[in-house]
Amino acid sequence: MAELKKIADAYIAAWNAVDPAERATRIAAAFTETASYRDPLMAGDGHDGIAALIAGVQERFPGFRFTLKGEPDGFAEMIRFSWSLGPDGEEAPVEETDICVIEDGRLARVTGFLDKVPAQQA
Amino acid sequence: MAELKKIADAYIAAWNAVDPAERATRIAAAFTETASYRDPLMAGDGHDGIAALIAGVQERFPGFRFTLKGEPDGFAEMIRFSWSLGPDGEEAPVEETDICVIEDGRLARVTGFLDKVPAQQA
Repeated sequence: MAELKKIADAYIAAWNAVDPAERATRIAAAFTETASYRDPLMAGDGHDGIAALIAGVQERFPGFRFTLKGEPDGFAEMIRFSWSLGPDGEEAPVEETDICVIEDGRLARVTGFLDKVPAQQA
Repeated sequence: MAELKKIADAYIAAWNAVDPAERATRIAAAFTETASYRDPLMAGDGHDGIAALIAGVQERFPGFRFTLKGEPDGFAEMIRFSWSLGPDGEEAPVEETDICVIEDGRLARVTGFLDKVPAQQA
């Protein structure tokens, strides 16, 4: 369980990294080189593709932070965790659950399902 | 969404089929020939492997029924749905969320995460 938490924390840290150099470091720590990210709204591949997604989300929601919700769970090479995205200290307008394949302690494939989206997108 | 609901309903019907011949028919309707099922407790492959899992669960929980919880969601070739397993009219002791890959309207890969398990297994 500590390993799963560490993997999820690394993922959240990557999404919260605003400085491009720090973001690249965090992404390399969290994702394999050939990692893919898919959710209903976005898709990105590899460290550069995922960096572009993260930059885009940060631009769209300036000042918002990703926060891990609850405890990650998993089995075999799978992990599941949920997160929220919102401004500090306010109710988060976005929530998602990610199911991912782990390879050697990093995320290789992320599939995200939206649990909560802003009303205008629902 | 109607298509996702239909796929999830076919899955639930397979798990609830007690008669072996009906079960085989339901499994063939819900799963591809090479389908895999994985959750933290069980793994099965192909129609026969999945039939063995279903028979085992029915033997362990006689009279219990699978019930779809909420609405399935999905995107691209992915579907997510949750179900409960319990005796008719009582609180269900088991709940799971499945994330699956769809191929031509049937489930090709099922990954299940336990949301609730009986206390002695928690």
